[in-house]
Amino acid sequence: MKLLLAGRFDDAERAIWHRLLAAELSGHELLIAPSESDRQSIEAAIVANPPPDALQGLPRLRLVQSLWAGVDRLLADPTLPPKVPIARMVDPALADAMAQTTLWAVLALHRGFFEYQRQQRAATWRQLAQRRADEVAVLLLGLGEMGRSCAVVLKRAGYRVTAWTRSGRTTAPDGVRVIGGADTLRRQLAETEVVVNLLPLTADTRGLLDAAFFAAMPRHGAVINFGRGAHVVDADLLLALDEGRLRHAVLDVFHHEPLPAEHRYWQHDRVTVLPHAAALTDPRSAARVAAANVQALAEGRPVAHRVDRTRGY
Amino acid sequence: MKLLLAGRFDDAERAIWHRLLAAELSGHELLIAPSESDRQSIEAAIVANPPPDALQGLPRLRLVQSLWAGVDRLLADPTLPPKVPIARMVDPALADAMAQTTLWAVLALHRGFFEYQRQQRAATWRQLAQRRADEVAVLLLGLGEMGRSCAVVLKRAGYRVTAWTRSGRTTAPDGVRVIGGADTLRRQLAETEVVVNLLPLTADTRGLLDAAFFAAMPRHGAVINFGRGAHVVDADLLLALDEGRLRHAVLDVFHHEPLPAEHRYWQHDRVTVLPHAAALTDPRSAARVAAANVQALAEGRPVAHRVDRTRGY
Repeated sequence: MKLLLAGRFDDAERAIWHRLLAAELSGHELLIAPSESDRQSIEAAIVANPPPDALQGLPRLRLVQSLWAGVDRLLADPTLPPKVPIARMVDPALADAMAQTTLWAVLALHRGFFEYQRQQRAATWRQLAQRRADEVAVLLLGLGEMGRSCAVVLKRAGYRVTAWTRSGRTTAPDGVRVIGGADTLRRQLAETEVVVNLLPLTADTRGLLDAAFFAAMPRHGAVINFGRGAHVVDADLLLALDEGRLRHAVLDVFHHEPLPAEHRYWQHDRVTVLPHAAALTDPRSAARVAAANVQALAEGRPVAHRVDRTRGY
Repeated sequence: MKLLLAGRFDDAERAIWHRLLAAELSGHELLIAPSESDRQSIEAAIVANPPPDALQGLPRLRLVQSLWAGVDRLLADPTLPPKVPIARMVDPALADAMAQTTLWAVLALHRGFFEYQRQQRAATWRQLAQRRADEVAVLLLGLGEMGRSCAVVLKRAGYRVTAWTRSGRTTAPDGVRVIGGADTLRRQLAETEVVVNLLPLTADTRGLLDAAFFAAMPRHGAVINFGRGAHVVDADLLLALDEGRLRHAVLDVFHHEPLPAEHRYWQHDRVTVLPHAAALTDPRSAARVAAANVQALAEGRPVAHRVDRTRGY
């Protein structure tokens, strides 16, 4: 089977992905720069933010396997062939990395480590009140592979964990309460100290974290955004932080990435900026996951982690 | 039974401790400012860094129950009655708090969150290489109640955990290797990325983290000191950080506390300063623990968590 590898990689990254994927897919031909005649027979494309048109003119394409977990940019590409199945990256190593970053951020908010960081700059020695983890209510937005992994780790650390999903009917890890619906969300926000956003970006979730959302939270709540930049209305978040309504925000994703050097988030002392690094795809494990799905296609078995284009993830 | 509560508290703290302890010890009389005749009959003292002489002139004293876990300052007090049993505070809530702070610091070192914090100040957007937890070797110095709790939590998070104890023969939580002895320590340091010091301060452990210790670690290792300030030779640590031999230090304890405003640690961008807050005693649970020990004394049962004065903890 002929395969295409297409992504906005630098040369070193492309070489790593090609080497790892080719090793897993030794019965197939993995092309980076296919000729016109190669393009006629390519059946699967393994992609990571592919350049425009990379997926056009592939008449036999039967699968687009993403190397990234989020596919909102891929789906927004008007040159994406309309009927070809798309599969997301679902890698336990990625979910582990996300759970680590989430636990780090929740621990920091709970125990005041961002506040101590501000105090350090002012050489201020002052102990903050210390609470137990079971006194801290965390609300996860989204309960996919990432959310589930975060829920397990936060629960194990002793936090009170609620997860909000579209339907509210998702099964949840032990001890994690699941809720759904807009009204229920507003009520839950009033009792939430830390919100962790892990939603996919869709028409329904864009701009969800806005002034009304922040106003529904108790004073001195905190927000962690590990979903997409467009989930947050930046001006509303900055106002809530500046007015002291919210205590802190940990942001990994932004409307424009890299975050422009002049953006207020960089220097805001109540914002922690991460460079879209909460969970990086690890090529060692992700290559195996992607290859297994392509191999399933080759053998006529069902492809896993299919994207529902109307749902958007 | 007459009891003494003695500590360097402010008025609000003293009131909280008195209220919680008195509620647990309702059959006894808990005195803050005993008369001379009261002093003749006090049998147990509940203390937190007691003022000099607070424990003198108590002829019937049979127990000194510390509200703090570390007793090095108490033992160094020349006015401490020489024969009276001393009990340390061993509170699972305290060990939980220490494990939270340790996990937060190890996650931050492992995933580069202190580096991202430095990058944020410079508005630098750059992703760091991401490794799995099982690629990170953590060495705990000390495996008492605190160390044990940290070992369990770090192991559960996937880290490679070794613990160094005086004897090397302590039983350890599942999956945690225990070592002992000075030569073994040097060899282990060469394979250690993050050292977490949780040792008690004794003549043997004072100044353990010195130039030779740091030199035995691999380049770009990191140090977390949650034991005592006097475990670290500050000049040696600063030199190791300045020369780039060590990547970062997270320090909660210092030779002089509060850390003097002019100390270099405050403004060093490779040092995280916490105000002796890695694990604060929670009066709600600690009062119950202290009261249970005093009640054991009253009923003639054995007192728990006795300090060995020759060992120093």
